[in-house]
Amino acid sequence: MKLTRKVKEILSWYESDNPGTKSNIARILMTGKLAGTGRMVILPVDQGFEHGPARSFAPNPAGYDPHYHFELAIEAGLNAYAAPLGALEASAASFAGCIPTILKVNHSNSLATLKDQAVTATVADALRLGCSAIGFTIYPSSEFQFEMIEELRELAAEAKAAGLAVVVWSYPRGPMLDKTGETALDIAAYAAHIAALVGAHIIKVKPPTAAISLDAAKKTYSSYPVEDDAAARFAHIVKACFNGRRLVVFSGGEAKGADSLLNEVRAIHAGGGNGSIVGRNAFQRPKEEALKLLSDIIDIYKSKP
Amino acid sequence: MKLTRKVKEILSWYESDNPGTKSNIARILMTGKLAGTGRMVILPVDQGFEHGPARSFAPNPAGYDPHYHFELAIEAGLNAYAAPLGALEASAASFAGCIPTILKVNHSNSLATLKDQAVTATVADALRLGCSAIGFTIYPSSEFQFEMIEELRELAAEAKAAGLAVVVWSYPRGPMLDKTGETALDIAAYAAHIAALVGAHIIKVKPPTAAISLDAAKKTYSSYPVEDDAAARFAHIVKACFNGRRLVVFSGGEAKGADSLLNEVRAIHAGGGNGSIVGRNAFQRPKEEALKLLSDIIDIYKSKP
Amino acid sequence: MKLTRKVKEILSWYESDNPGTKSNIARILMTGKLAGTGRMVILPVDQGFEHGPARSFAPNPAGYDPHYHFELAIEAGLNAYAAPLGALEASAASFAGCIPTILKVNHSNSLATLKDQAVTATVADALRLGCSAIGFTIYPSSEFQFEMIEELRELAAEAKAAGLAVVVWSYPRGPMLDKTGETALDIAAYAAHIAALVGAHIIKVKPPTAAISLDAAKKTYSSYPVEDDAAARFAHIVKACFNGRRLVVFSGGEAKGADSLLNEVRAIHAGGGNGSIVGRNAFQRPKEEALKLLSDIIDIYKSKP
Amino acid sequence: MKLTRKVKEILSWYESDNPGTKSNIARILMTGKLAGTGRMVILPVDQGFEHGPARSFAPNPAGYDPHYHFELAIEAGLNAYAAPLGALEASAASFAGCIPTILKVNHSNSLATLKDQAVTATVADALRLGCSAIGFTIYPSSEFQFEMIEELRELAAEAKAAGLAVVVWSYPRGPMLDKTGETALDIAAYAAHIAALVGAHIIKVKPPTAAISLDAAKKTYSSYPVEDDAAARFAHIVKACFNGRRLVVFSGGEAKGADSLLNEVRAIHAGGGNGSIVGRNAFQRPKEEALKLLSDIIDIYKSKP
Amino acid sequence: MKLTRKVKEILSWYESDNPGTKSNIARILMTGKLAGTGRMVILPVDQGFEHGPARSFAPNPAGYDPHYHFELAIEAGLNAYAAPLGALEASAASFAGCIPTILKVNHSNSLATLKDQAVTATVADALRLGCSAIGFTIYPSSEFQFEMIEELRELAAEAKAAGLAVVVWSYPRGPMLDKTGETALDIAAYAAHIAALVGAHIIKVKPPTAAISLDAAKKTYSSYPVEDDAAARFAHIVKACFNGRRLVVFSGGEAKGADSLLNEVRAIHAGGGNGSIVGRNAFQRPKEEALKLLSDIIDIYKSKP
Repeated sequence: MKLTRKVKEILSWYESDNPGTKSNIARILMTGKLAGTGRMVILPVDQGFEHGPARSFAPNPAGYDPHYHFELAIEAGLNAYAAPLGALEASAASFAGCIPTILKVNHSNSLATLKDQAVTATVADALRLGCSAIGFTIYPSSEFQFEMIEELRELAAEAKAAGLAVVVWSYPRGPMLDKTGETALDIAAYAAHIAALVGAHIIKVKPPTAAISLDAAKKTYSSYPVEDDAAARFAHIVKACFNGRRLVVFSGGEAKGADSLLNEVRAIHAGGGNGSIVGRNAFQRPKEEALKLLSDIIDIYKSKP
Repeated sequence: MKLTRKVKEILSWYESDNPGTKSNIARILMTGKLAGTGRMVILPVDQGFEHGPARSFAPNPAGYDPHYHFELAIEAGLNAYAAPLGALEASAASFAGCIPTILKVNHSNSLATLKDQAVTATVADALRLGCSAIGFTIYPSSEFQFEMIEELRELAAEAKAAGLAVVVWSYPRGPMLDKTGETALDIAAYAAHIAALVGAHIIKVKPPTAAISLDAAKKTYSSYPVEDDAAARFAHIVKACFNGRRLVVFSGGEAKGADSLLNEVRAIHAGGGNGSIVGRNAFQRPKEEALKLLSDIIDIYKSKP
Repeated sequence: MKLTRKVKEILSWYESDNPGTKSNIARILMTGKLAGTGRMVILPVDQGFEHGPARSFAPNPAGYDPHYHFELAIEAGLNAYAAPLGALEASAASFAGCIPTILKVNHSNSLATLKDQAVTATVADALRLGCSAIGFTIYPSSEFQFEMIEELRELAAEAKAAGLAVVVWSYPRGPMLDKTGETALDIAAYAAHIAALVGAHIIKVKPPTAAISLDAAKKTYSSYPVEDDAAARFAHIVKACFNGRRLVVFSGGEAKGADSLLNEVRAIHAGGGNGSIVGRNAFQRPKEEALKLLSDIIDIYKSKP
Repeated sequence: MKLTRKVKEILSWYESDNPGTKSNIARILMTGKLAGTGRMVILPVDQGFEHGPARSFAPNPAGYDPHYHFELAIEAGLNAYAAPLGALEASAASFAGCIPTILKVNHSNSLATLKDQAVTATVADALRLGCSAIGFTIYPSSEFQFEMIEELRELAAEAKAAGLAVVVWSYPRGPMLDKTGETALDIAAYAAHIAALVGAHIIKVKPPTAAISLDAAKKTYSSYPVEDDAAARFAHIVKACFNGRRLVVFSGGEAKGADSLLNEVRAIHAGGGNGSIVGRNAFQRPKEEALKLLSDIIDIYKSKP
Repeated sequence: MKLTRKVKEILSWYESDNPGTKSNIARILMTGKLAGTGRMVILPVDQGFEHGPARSFAPNPAGYDPHYHFELAIEAGLNAYAAPLGALEASAASFAGCIPTILKVNHSNSLATLKDQAVTATVADALRLGCSAIGFTIYPSSEFQFEMIEELRELAAEAKAAGLAVVVWSYPRGPMLDKTGETALDIAAYAAHIAALVGAHIIKVKPPTAAISLDAAKKTYSSYPVEDDAAARFAHIVKACFNGRRLVVFSGGEAKGADSLLNEVRAIHAGGGNGSIVGRNAFQRPKEEALKLLSDIIDIYKSKP
């Protein structure tokens, strides 16, 4: 398999990484229907951990079975599938070699009273399960953010030495941020930038709104305004990821109408984002609907921006 | 990518292995022109270490450059490429994600006075270089065979825990064996069986002759003769590999005429062998000739047996 | 390259350090346009982490790209460039061997609710990224100051054993200090002294004001007054750094007019400070302006004090 | 300091190495009068260990003092200085930051009865002494060659992780080789190739003669003859070092006349070798003579090939 | 206590060592009647281990008691006392703080069949016993020389990190050397040089004879002859110790007449050696005689050379 010029360019950004990590990034970028484009669609199924099984899988009960998500990701021609330890242990052997996997190694749940997560898996787990990457969530602004970043530092260093890629979910939450603040443009850009600075290879953030949350940032954004347009906001996030030298993907967020989601994808595409992580919007729909939606998303990413 | 029924069957043989190792075996079996067939052609380039650079590369000087072998293996549509540490360090980043690699972790050389090898690389090296497997040579019958097997035990255990596959080159040599003995049918079958018993996922042996070398074995082979036919001999080796439950590939041996090599491949194919490791016969020919020869070999393995 | 008499004298102050650490201090002092003078100008780019990407880079968007800062520091003829892990990972290979680097190994951010920092990188990271030093921030007066100092102790010991230099950012903040207190003369001198006492090779503090903040210190400063003159205040800080036996550099602080900054540099120079760490005042200006400003700063440090 | 195009190209060959190792290779290539040319002259002073002090230093008694060799290497504008532990401990602090150093970490002596070496220093020593590389000798063909290669494997892996470069002295000696064999063309090329395959960044071998020593290699060299010309032989060694993808330098060998040495250097230059390691021919001459000779060597390497 | 100019100069030679090691070297040099002169007389009592108790102590039975040797060394005003683990364990507390001690950490015995030694104590032992240094014997030319040097490397690195000094007894013996060879001038100089190169702070060798043993060295010594005079030979050994940058002391050797011993001391003194290690010649004499002899030796070292 020859890498495309685009994928070669992307790999060149990871100039401190060993060939193992480069291979795993290449593997993700060269899989599925978007292979070679530098764009990605990833299926994450950590909602069961985060929100409980019924809230996650009752709308489409096939999703109670971990095998279902592998099948969905493979049939849809996605780039990778991300899941917690137990889910991969229950399915990774059956789908060995079929699609790159990302072992999500920390998790919170809806029963939590602290804005923190438990580290639930290790780099050794990722290797024995055949994963291409580990995934880790940080909560910038939480009272636990420093501990979370320190956990990430250790896991990321170990992962990189073992030739794995590191995907960071950067989700601001904490006492300084209300609901609006968590997805405000300045905060989303800041969260993405922190993920890049702590060494993420692939960064996942939520789509930003037009709000500016941090008082200290308002002056900057008023002097250097970001155009009030979704694509411009995504482009601003891309800039915050080392001017595009780090791959950044956006979550689809809450389950929503297909049209609304596709419009968001068009804006990500236009803004130069590297793709989408689509969870609930994929696995909570009946399979055929999900495949149709994912196919539409992929078509957008395949089109000329 | 969906696995074929054949590849799924093969993976089911490795029933104690973790999904990581299965993924890497699948990756090798699902790459190149033979993807999905259960057959493999692998390019090994360790001759520079074993025989010196000029004996290895003077006939086709392009081979002095480690990048050449990656290009050859990829263009020919092979399943994997095996090489020593330094050669992979000089090329693995340029070809990250393009073809599964096997890090050969021990080596001898023509200047050696002992029938032993030096361990030249580690599992950590294989991970940082993005390899799918480690390769290790044992010399059954050498005075050093037990040390070699014990080195293999440690490296193989570590490789398996890290989700890598283990390829064993089993080359009988030692005081009990003359040149004929080293490739005698009983000895070759025995060497393949030892590799299987010490835990190899993929076994590499030399094509056996009709000779029977071990006195103690002669009575058995006379009571239960193996048909005097190359395919039957290959089938005997396959039987020695857990009745076919372990992948076994055969070296092409010394550089030779294309016809002679293709006949051997036909016999391997007919005997149920899983493929060929073709080194000197590939990289010592001019590239176009090599691609033609490898294409012919692949065509044989793609045909109905 | 022969060291100047001045640099040899400086190295003699670090009398307990091994030749590795001395080499790295020498490397910093013998690089750029101030090579050999014992003065330094360092470019730090940790503002993206501390204040977010837009507040840091929107005024001069070239700075979103980590390569820009390396280029700026090299073209300006600076002594060293300091940055967080991810930024160095994205650029250190491209600029290998071009300028000494300082890996900043802990960071806070504007979303933090605690006066603490996360440890984001290790000595092993500094070695693999080819850095000459690690940089660490302590917050004397914070409720977390003792934990921070203990983290520094471990990292500094490991860094020194590995032949690296240790740069300490000593920034007083905490419940006893209002905004004025954080840069008061007694507090700044105290912060510099603590950094020296915990083993820093190079100390970075903010320029002190004439204020005296700590009640317990007022009597002393009234009996032994420091002349009300910026140069005298800088000289007082230098005294607090083992009477000049430790290198001390001053931050330029918030983006400001060139004249104001150059006056400050003149006072540092006159007071015997070893140089400036100029971040925002450099990278937030257009490149030509930044190069002009840095050149003017360097000219001051090159002049006879 | 900006790297030259040539040095950038050389660094690109070390595609699996981290920025630390690249920085140290760059440091060696960007130091001295040959800075930026891709050529090197290195001063090694391990003869005291190998041959004893009087045989090494009596001709020019200044050499008994370890400081002398640092001074000589710096004044001559060489790229690096290589020495044993004790010699660097006695001088590295005085010359910290002045020239890249290579800690030779194994040694034999003239009193040895075995073709082996003692490991005399570690990677930790190299870091605390501020070295850019470790140096290690292997004796291909010795009964101890496999142990030596295994020692090298461990030290090299540790050195690479710590951002150091690895220089391998590959000196064939053993029961299969008479004096002629040790420097025969086939053996020298083989020794260089083994060093490359075990992961050396810089390879040091002796200048090859026209002899072919290994019976098994004679047919190859008769079919693919190397022109009977010193430059052609050096070019053959360069080919054996991954077709020039690894830096290779040649020892000056026994003390000899300046003309003979300069002719050898001209041939290395014409053959594309990366430079010379000149020990006895430098430090056994009076300083002025040595500086003149080294200057003449450098002039050759600076000329258009 | 102020260090003398001479001792300061000596400490400056140990430029890579930490203040702990420098303190211990200073302690040895600033103790006893030779304090501050840069000369030393050390009492070693390892003969019990090497030759058995009766051969060692029967001539002066007081020596059976380990306390005796401490008393002797202190009363005689020596610089240090060296002994094996058990002897120090039986006396170090009684004489805590009275005189610097050297824990000899390896030993052979007269019952040995191999030219090797057992490592009998550790750096931890030296620390708990309050020692200033460890002592280690190597046998250059023995088949075990490489193992011994490797043991020394590990112990010396640990000792230096813990702030101890390292004293190396370098005693050539092995298949290449007859009795004459073991103390031949070339061999003694070589042995001293090896000790310096592996990192000894203080080197102990036997007084050299005028013989030249190694064939390969004869030409050198004939071209660059050493004057046939004991002082000239000692000066040659001093040169071999980094031109005097390492302290070198000489054993008194076999028990002998006082006159003969004093003449040897005069020659060491004239040749610039740093002193004597006097064992049997001290403790096998009655105490008063021993004190007289040691006093005479000290007087020689105190005189103007």
